[in-house]
Amino acid sequence: MWPLMRLIRRPLSTAAPRGLVYEKHGEPTQVLRLKNIEVPSPTNYEVKVKMLAAPINPSDINMIQGTYAMLPPLPAVGGNEGVGVVIEVGNHASSVRPGDWVIPVNAGLGTWCTEGLYSEEALVRIPSDISIVGAATISVNPCTAYRLLSDYETLRPGDSVIQNAGNSSVGQAVIQIAASLGITTINVVRDRPDLPGLVERLRDLGADHVITEEQLRKPEMKDLFKNCPRPRLALNCVGGKSTTEMLRHLDHGGTMVTYGGMAKQPVTIPVQCLLYNHLFASGFMFLVFFFSIDREEITKMIRDLCDLMRRGKLLPPPCTEWPLEDFSHALRNSQTPFLSRKQILIM
Amino acid sequence: MWPLMRLIRRPLSTAAPRGLVYEKHGEPTQVLRLKNIEVPSPTNYEVKVKMLAAPINPSDINMIQGTYAMLPPLPAVGGNEGVGVVIEVGNHASSVRPGDWVIPVNAGLGTWCTEGLYSEEALVRIPSDISIVGAATISVNPCTAYRLLSDYETLRPGDSVIQNAGNSSVGQAVIQIAASLGITTINVVRDRPDLPGLVERLRDLGADHVITEEQLRKPEMKDLFKNCPRPRLALNCVGGKSTTEMLRHLDHGGTMVTYGGMAKQPVTIPVQCLLYNHLFASGFMFLVFFFSIDREEITKMIRDLCDLMRRGKLLPPPCTEWPLEDFSHALRNSQTPFLSRKQILIM
Repeated sequence: MWPLMRLIRRPLSTAAPRGLVYEKHGEPTQVLRLKNIEVPSPTNYEVKVKMLAAPINPSDINMIQGTYAMLPPLPAVGGNEGVGVVIEVGNHASSVRPGDWVIPVNAGLGTWCTEGLYSEEALVRIPSDISIVGAATISVNPCTAYRLLSDYETLRPGDSVIQNAGNSSVGQAVIQIAASLGITTINVVRDRPDLPGLVERLRDLGADHVITEEQLRKPEMKDLFKNCPRPRLALNCVGGKSTTEMLRHLDHGGTMVTYGGMAKQPVTIPVQCLLYNHLFASGFMFLVFFFSIDREEITKMIRDLCDLMRRGKLLPPPCTEWPLEDFSHALRNSQTPFLSRKQILIM
Repeated sequence: MWPLMRLIRRPLSTAAPRGLVYEKHGEPTQVLRLKNIEVPSPTNYEVKVKMLAAPINPSDINMIQGTYAMLPPLPAVGGNEGVGVVIEVGNHASSVRPGDWVIPVNAGLGTWCTEGLYSEEALVRIPSDISIVGAATISVNPCTAYRLLSDYETLRPGDSVIQNAGNSSVGQAVIQIAASLGITTINVVRDRPDLPGLVERLRDLGADHVITEEQLRKPEMKDLFKNCPRPRLALNCVGGKSTTEMLRHLDHGGTMVTYGGMAKQPVTIPVQCLLYNHLFASGFMFLVFFFSIDREEITKMIRDLCDLMRRGKLLPPPCTEWPLEDFSHALRNSQTPFLSRKQILIM
């Protein structure tokens, strides 16, 4: 599961493979260095990949800071997501060929590099007829949204789902995937000066209802359910009051899945929701989910998501692209609140 | 699911069937009256039962107060649990015969009566070679404990379970059933003056570890897990801090089941327990569970529990028995805190 790359100290060269390497945990702008890395020819089940693009996600930052649940051994190359093209395969590797586009399905592989050597089983093929940015950002947010909508409740057209952080990257993917399936979404967002603009943007993506945290607490919420069934599924990325309020609207026997804790507050569940409403609460964590589903299911998921992308039903996130050399700018932007644009490193 | 008994107003007679009837919701001692009730001969799938004994459970009180989640139509006979002997069956009833002992498996049937007319499907046979008190109190607490230990995690000998309210009726049944299966129990209780006595009583029942809420919060808890695996299952009947502290000791991927909320505080789950520990939280409510499992499973459960009772591995709770006429005393005792004795009406 960990990178097969071996790091060496030698003068920087633009021709040699390069990567953003950290040798100790800390603030990414302080501990990351652009360095030459050694990427030997692949043997056995190894695959050499020329990386094309890789985004900066919050979990990448936490991993470098050393605060994430899974940490690769040091030194390590940063980044968990991205897309690359296979340039050489080991004698036993059979699932990919030179020229194939691939994305990593294991965590901690290190994707912020021009080339990498990975184990075959850590990669999955992806069609090359979608955009590079779409492919580079498919595995964390759209795949999370796909699994959240697939693995906890059997949803049918006409069913509804409620989520907080409706404007997050996962939230936007949930809106689009649900809309393509005929599932109604109720999207809770924080109030803000440009709320009408945000509501319009989310509605353009397919959101049926966009409500603020304040509206969620009001008795008028019951009017919403005159024409919309109670949600079978609640997706929680916030915690604290936001979550408790959302739970009150869940259908009997429904499921709440927590996949983040932006408010840094625990999930508080009224006992009556567990006893009388027969609520199920569970958690989903991106970095572990790929280990728990089989290869066939991963392939189906990628196929479904790429199909949505081709049909314009799943848009890549708004992005700012940076050459790998400008990683410091990209990192700073990625940690600027409310920027709402994904920072992408282009190799 | 509701009683087939029809209530009539006529002078009280000791020969005629009698029952504790309430015509409106309120405090049981104020709204319950001992009345003659009409119990016609059974037809079709009906079964006439001569009740032998019926306990007073907290849920019975809440049902009469009108605060319970499921309420039978009024007027109604009180009580949900008990044991009786079949005296007559309708022409289509085939699962029971006169002379059989039966217990109700539906809620709100009304068991505080000398005779009752029930639908065949609302009853299940129970062997008559266990004690009357054992049979009369098997369905609420031992069946809850049995389901809590069976339906959420696949537990094997050597596994461990943690529970709060370890001294409750369900808690004591959990201790005994788990001990019979070779499953280690970690039992959290509130501190009290007679703590050593309580610890000894629970240990006599088979409890492996008895700890106070205060001990649960201390770093020394980790010493306990040097010789005992982290629990796969946490049983929560309390809520609030007690629950959150218990969760911290749960094994990765473990399940917490809430079946009560004695502290009248919500269940608070740290987000990291959901994300990193992959905790699953669910709820169990006695009155609905019989509807969700099949007849065969109910029969197996009753057989298993009666077998434990015969072998002295599952003791009936400490009881005080009252003639039906003395129901007011029994009701008052049942609502006296810390009495730790089950009040049983003998018909």
